Amino acid sequence: MTERSFPPQVTIVEVGPRDGLQNEAAFVPTLEKIALVNRLAAAGHTTIEVSAFVSPKWVPQMADAAQVFAGITRRPGVRYTALVPNLQGLSRAREARVDEVAVFPAASETFSKGNINQTIDEAIANARSIASEALGAGLRVRAYLSTSFGCPFEGPVAPARVAEMTARLIDLGAYEVALSDTIGIAHPRQVSDVLDEVTKRVPVGNLALHFHDTRGTALVNVYAGLEAGVLTFDASAGGLGGCPYSPGATGNLATEDLVFLLDGCGITTGPRLDAIAEASRAIEPHVGHALPSRVFRALQATSEHG
Amino acid sequence: MTERSFPPQVTIVEVGPRDGLQNEAAFVPTLEKIALVNRLAAAGHTTIEVSAFVSPKWVPQMADAAQVFAGITRRPGVRYTALVPNLQGLSRAREARVDEVAVFPAASETFSKGNINQTIDEAIANARSIASEALGAGLRVRAYLSTSFGCPFEGPVAPARVAEMTARLIDLGAYEVALSDTIGIAHPRQVSDVLDEVTKRVPVGNLALHFHDTRGTALVNVYAGLEAGVLTFDASAGGLGGCPYSPGATGNLATEDLVFLLDGCGITTGPRLDAIAEASRAIEPHVGHALPSRVFRALQATSEHG
Repeated sequence: MTERSFPPQVTIVEVGPRDGLQNEAAFVPTLEKIALVNRLAAAGHTTIEVSAFVSPKWVPQMADAAQVFAGITRRPGVRYTALVPNLQGLSRAREARVDEVAVFPAASETFSKGNINQTIDEAIANARSIASEALGAGLRVRAYLSTSFGCPFEGPVAPARVAEMTARLIDLGAYEVALSDTIGIAHPRQVSDVLDEVTKRVPVGNLALHFHDTRGTALVNVYAGLEAGVLTFDASAGGLGGCPYSPGATGNLATEDLVFLLDGCGITTGPRLDAIAEASRAIEPHVGHALPSRVFRALQATSEHG
Repeated sequence: MTERSFPPQVTIVEVGPRDGLQNEAAFVPTLEKIALVNRLAAAGHTTIEVSAFVSPKWVPQMADAAQVFAGITRRPGVRYTALVPNLQGLSRAREARVDEVAVFPAASETFSKGNINQTIDEAIANARSIASEALGAGLRVRAYLSTSFGCPFEGPVAPARVAEMTARLIDLGAYEVALSDTIGIAHPRQVSDVLDEVTKRVPVGNLALHFHDTRGTALVNVYAGLEAGVLTFDASAGGLGGCPYSPGATGNLATEDLVFLLDGCGITTGPRLDAIAEASRAIEPHVGHALPSRVFRALQATSEHG
């Protein structure tokens, strides 16, 4: 008999406007991004990753980060967050009045060099300087740990390495580390193994899980995370986003699919499924393809056919 | 800490040629169906549901059941099975030299009347007469229990009802009952609850799980089934098939996705992922839309872009 003691409530971090749109080929107009964020807040989300203050040369999709922050209607009780790669990005983020910033080192040396042109130690030092200044300015700091479940260059990443990196990120001031499956390769046994190792160093309450559904395993990985006591999960409305290492492949775990799963498990999350789907429906024409969320597609099919 | 004692091996029942193609809008040419079955056998499957001996008036996609059985190359060690709705269908199935037949009553009275125009008791009596004759002729008999996790008309179905129906089906001679989520509405807590109840009446070794991925929960439901000790899962190459109650929605659990999950959990299944994907690739042009399997799509993306 399996133990089935699920928590009464978990938190969803909505990353569609940032991680989703950043990985879409199309540039979504600024006004549509603003409308998306506002719809997601109205749907009941409490944490929304709005944009990234990165170089428009490298990530043209996020070039309008400041305009998006300037355009959104801030709802009380909602945290509007952004990715920052360096102190310059932090400065822009502060001007834009973000509530929280996120740093994003990687667990794999090769990926770190390839993706952000820094060794892991350089990336940690960089994150430390960002966190120090952000915390001093009263901002919360979150960390993504990229390639926590596999690297496109090195393959599997040792759980002990993930645990060590997570501890370093908590140590430098992050309140939460999102263990991120950058290439959508994780499977549930691995999720359990990594969490076993990481929770030897860091309390499970300081962890989040960030999955991509590239191989259809995002929800089952969430389930393994729930069983291990994780209380925060990242998701993207409609499944917005692709996988930069598999063009054409499915992107982020869809918020609709996550909410449907958690509802079924009797776990409260906050955002309303129909309102999330409404946000997905409004953004879909601007990304140039059908959004992959299974639940969103089922809702669409039902509404189109009766 | 979660218990993680997975079985070393599970069985996949490949239902793409029947449950998949039956629910596709397009009629797939007979020769392509034959090629699909042969490819799936070559991939290493040991049980393949080939077709259904049902009325072509109701299910035109399966009108060529006899020709498909006549055309396939039988591999030693592979069971070629078919759905039969009545004694006439059984007679046609025997002429076609099927190895195993499947009956398909429902757990919900309303669905039973709507789908097969029989009360549950009439459907059980019908299944009993089919099973009796089939067993007498040396055939194995499998049973699907439709709407085990929810009915499109009645909503949730009581686990006690599912347990009682399962026990009746084993009693009439079925070696295995596939608890079927006809409308793709099951969630993992429910899977655990239903299995708790059913295994009070029937050994878990006599159960299979049959999921549709309409809401993206098929794999996580499989995971809950694995944790409860289930050893047999149905799947459909590429995710062939739709959901008759949600036109346009995603269909059967994809074999590629299931194999990827089980591989990751260290569980042996038999069929080779690349060979299954090859079968999916060959049939895809004949169904008129992109196959929904996430793993298949990721493999396609990788082969097209790098």
